Amino acid sequence: MNYKIALIPGDGIGPEIVAEAKKVLDQVCGVYGHSFSYEEVLLGGASIDVHGVPLTDEAVETAKASDAVLMGSIGGDAKTSPWYQLEPSKRPEAGLLAIRKALNLFANLRPAYLYDELKGACPLKEEVIGDGFDMIIVRELTGGLYFGERKTVVENGVTTAVDTLTYNENEIRRIAVKAFDIAMKRNKKVTSVDKANVLDSSRLWRKVVEEVAKDYPEVALEHMLVDNCAMQLVHDPGQFDVILTENMFGDILSDEASMVTGSIGMLSSASLNETKFGLYEPSHGSAPDIAGKGIANPLATILSAAMMLRYSLDLDKEADAVEAAVQKVLTEGYRTVDIMADGMKQVGTKEMGDLIAERI
Amino acid sequence: MNYKIALIPGDGIGPEIVAEAKKVLDQVCGVYGHSFSYEEVLLGGASIDVHGVPLTDEAVETAKASDAVLMGSIGGDAKTSPWYQLEPSKRPEAGLLAIRKALNLFANLRPAYLYDELKGACPLKEEVIGDGFDMIIVRELTGGLYFGERKTVVENGVTTAVDTLTYNENEIRRIAVKAFDIAMKRNKKVTSVDKANVLDSSRLWRKVVEEVAKDYPEVALEHMLVDNCAMQLVHDPGQFDVILTENMFGDILSDEASMVTGSIGMLSSASLNETKFGLYEPSHGSAPDIAGKGIANPLATILSAAMMLRYSLDLDKEADAVEAAVQKVLTEGYRTVDIMADGMKQVGTKEMGDLIAERI
Ligand SMILES: CC(C)[C@H](C(=O)O)[C@@H](O)C(=O)O
Ligand SMILES: CC(C)[C@H](C(=O)O)[C@@H](O)C(=O)O
Repeated sequence: MNYKIALIPGDGIGPEIVAEAKKVLDQVCGVYGHSFSYEEVLLGGASIDVHGVPLTDEAVETAKASDAVLMGSIGGDAKTSPWYQLEPSKRPEAGLLAIRKALNLFANLRPAYLYDELKGACPLKEEVIGDGFDMIIVRELTGGLYFGERKTVVENGVTTAVDTLTYNENEIRRIAVKAFDIAMKRNKKVTSVDKANVLDSSRLWRKVVEEVAKDYPEVALEHMLVDNCAMQLVHDPGQFDVILTENMFGDILSDEASMVTGSIGMLSSASLNETKFGLYEPSHGSAPDIAGKGIANPLATILSAAMMLRYSLDLDKEADAVEAAVQKVLTEGYRTVDIMADGMKQVGTKEMGDLIAERI
Repeated sequence: MNYKIALIPGDGIGPEIVAEAKKVLDQVCGVYGHSFSYEEVLLGGASIDVHGVPLTDEAVETAKASDAVLMGSIGGDAKTSPWYQLEPSKRPEAGLLAIRKALNLFANLRPAYLYDELKGACPLKEEVIGDGFDMIIVRELTGGLYFGERKTVVENGVTTAVDTLTYNENEIRRIAVKAFDIAMKRNKKVTSVDKANVLDSSRLWRKVVEEVAKDYPEVALEHMLVDNCAMQLVHDPGQFDVILTENMFGDILSDEASMVTGSIGMLSSASLNETKFGLYEPSHGSAPDIAGKGIANPLATILSAAMMLRYSLDLDKEADAVEAAVQKVLTEGYRTVDIMADGMKQVGTKEMGDLIAERI
């Protein structure tokens, strides 16, 4: 079949890693007889450089007209890049927030998984790792503090800044449904994370999640306070299956969880709307310090492409093949520098892409 | 000298651990020739049981009339305790929030320190621990999402909940000054944590912190995004000296940092206002599951009492003596069950209190 894919190379290592993901997708095309047509979309710094703004309406339209969006990473070095001389609403990150909202990508899925082969990179002791861990964080992505009203005002010479954390029951329900649906395909456990001992939005969150849970009698639901969850991720990550949480808590906890795996260069993510459409990107950032050096790990982006095949294009077999190829290359001992270890074979970005493509 | 101390035994293990801290303080009195008069204050579940509310005006007055407040812990098992049948504003935790506000305790100091003797309890690998770590989190405690306006409204049959994150420049300035003052007595490094790529309140935070930094040319200031900080605490905790952050981020990060030490039963905290007055409590919770068993670790409370001696009563020598006694008892191999390890001598709550008192 023919699919239209919008490609966002982005900034920093983005173009390099997206090129490898495309290489792998082209191989999938050849082997499974599909055809993918790609359209490039500018976002973030790359868009500022050309258009003066981090996201244009045309970019949004191109993305909307596609079956899915595959992205590298956006943003630069905040200390040195001229992008960060611009006011906040014009910086690269603002483009990412704007496209999430424009495409209604309310469900952000971030797997945090410990590869057996990469246990050495995990910062936790063997006894804490136990039998390993495999969780997915389901983060609400278009609500909360990220998109609430905000203002900075001066009264009697004193500046006050206000951000607003708002959720309505429908926003909570749809993300909860997503989390429970995913749990049904996994280990049937949902940990809903909130701060219900303080926030009204968290109390509504808890109530709605409990209502949704009634439709999933097989799924075990537990509520956990966000401060406790931040502890548990370090103390016993194996206890988690699906973590369901709001936007800001999800931002913090998913980054913590990804670092707990020790191999953030391996972690994919998907941002979905109510349809099959989604935007797929690595969990890691644009790593401007190593951009252009040919050493970035493309596996998170390649695995994001696999998520795209599975969730947006319904190509499960093809997604399995990509994931199996990644697993195979790890088993064979190939490593980019970020996950390099004694006795392994170090390869660069392009070689890693080739190795995966050859194994499809 | 004579000092008035308000004691809040609180709930769960609170009364047991406060009793041991009092034992140690009495010993300090005897040895150094002070006199401490204690007044008990009810807070949390203990107050609900007697007064029907988690904090009374009388309790606040008693606390205000004292030189400092020493607290155990509050709250119970949210699943089983009748306190959690009450509406949120009447539960034990609401009393804690109310007393913080009533006493204007805007500066929460939470040290996260790795004892050499307790490296075995740290969840991180040796190579991540490196030379160990010793940081203090300075958390703003009376602003932000915790105390902003909130409401839950129904419009057209849809329920929406709103919380507000507000900071004015004065609130930011006074906590920043506290952090820089503390950094001057330590390793002269402040990491200010915010989410300035999204929040107006964080952008104001960053601006004010930079202004304050100008008065401390010797202190190195760096800004870090909260998601990155959640990663760095797991990746390289040794990089931190003083972490300065707002209320909710501080709640999450301080709990993560305390779990990273692996010995949360050892961690004290202080909550201070603009004067010398403060409330001192262990970083850990009320552990209802082990309440009354005589096995709780009283060291975090004893170390909180040491912080009280130092910050509120200006008794540095006495504080040193308590801290040295704790260090000595650890070196001698005594451990409560939560930090027990092979070859060590296991003791209960009371014995641990005796051991510390004897060494003052
Ligand atoms: C770049 C930033 C605005 C973004 C976020 O906070 O959502 C990033 O941290 C992420 O998690 O994708
Ligand atoms: C009990 C709760 C309201 C409180 C907080 O969130 O501040 C606690 O977690 C703490 O950190 O002291």
